Amino acid sequence: MRKIITVGRQFGSGGRELARRLAEELQIDYYDREILAEIAKHTELSEEYVQNVIECKPHHLYPITVGQSISYVNTYAFLQTQSVYTAQRDIIRDLAAKSDCVIVGRCADYILQDLNPYRIFVHADIDSRVARCMERRSAQEAAMTEKEMKKQILRLDKNRAKYYSFYTGQKWGDPACYDLSINTTNCNIKEMAAVIAKLFQ
Amino acid sequence: MRKIITVGRQFGSGGRELARRLAEELQIDYYDREILAEIAKHTELSEEYVQNVIECKPHHLYPITVGQSISYVNTYAFLQTQSVYTAQRDIIRDLAAKSDCVIVGRCADYILQDLNPYRIFVHADIDSRVARCMERRSAQEAAMTEKEMKKQILRLDKNRAKYYSFYTGQKWGDPACYDLSINTTNCNIKEMAAVIAKLFQ
Repeated sequence: MRKIITVGRQFGSGGRELARRLAEELQIDYYDREILAEIAKHTELSEEYVQNVIECKPHHLYPITVGQSISYVNTYAFLQTQSVYTAQRDIIRDLAAKSDCVIVGRCADYILQDLNPYRIFVHADIDSRVARCMERRSAQEAAMTEKEMKKQILRLDKNRAKYYSFYTGQKWGDPACYDLSINTTNCNIKEMAAVIAKLFQ
Repeated sequence: MRKIITVGRQFGSGGRELARRLAEELQIDYYDREILAEIAKHTELSEEYVQNVIECKPHHLYPITVGQSISYVNTYAFLQTQSVYTAQRDIIRDLAAKSDCVIVGRCADYILQDLNPYRIFVHADIDSRVARCMERRSAQEAAMTEKEMKKQILRLDKNRAKYYSFYTGQKWGDPACYDLSINTTNCNIKEMAAVIAKLFQ
């Protein structure tokens, strides 16, 4: 049986850690930020720009061109967003065709539906997500308060939900769209990954 | 660590089978219909009547008395429903206090929240639930068509959702209310139960 596992996740839920540990347990490939780098290569856009497109609304304006009419910028930004999605789709299909793997986010559950992937969604209550993100703050985030972190988490989730819904027509996080929905609120992620791995062994 | 596991389930999803197998794997007690019999004993109502109360709307009319004004019957039925819930709550608390166990349905996740139970919700797509229920039809259901079965499943789920929401103030099946939401659509329930059991071993 092929092992193609997709992991959607609320921001700060530890979904990425669970996905990485699951791939380690199963000794299969793991793709997360690697996909961004590949998209950047294919589209000749910067990795940061690609990430912004993916994390934000599908139609959000990215005025990377100047001196043009608003409507032109709108259309350009829209096409750019579409091209990022198309590159992402092709890359995810190539990766899954190449070998068994765990793929984090990026609508992979929908993109790979013909391969019948095992679809996991990872979530947690907002307090534990804020706590996790505060613990793991980057240098740039060092001055952030819990309130600001919460606001950032909710904004990122809202954008992920919109992005997912726009490209898949499905509701992000709706348990009907996944094989397993894991609440990591009171969960040891390492132990959970080891147990989930047994579904595929 | 105490093992108190609650299993909510969509009708026909195999949640009851998963719960039973999980209890077997863990060699702990399993409570499902046993609770109905206990409630019946405590309330001196028939087991069938108790089941009707639990499967239907909290305020649904059960005109078991006759020759009284409608408002009186309403009040009586309401009090009867409340007494069934109160008995159910007390029995579930007693059972969980007695020993490690798996308890199916009946708002046990909410009733036992102080004990921090592991809360599982089992669901599946409607086609696979209809197929499962058609395969397992009782003698009385032998003449039922798939269409009728689907209608019955959706009606029972709607009632379960209302009952749960009325007594818990939470949304039945909302993944945030559970530790694990399992989609059994393409799932070998026996294997899944064996894997889930490892979370507690």
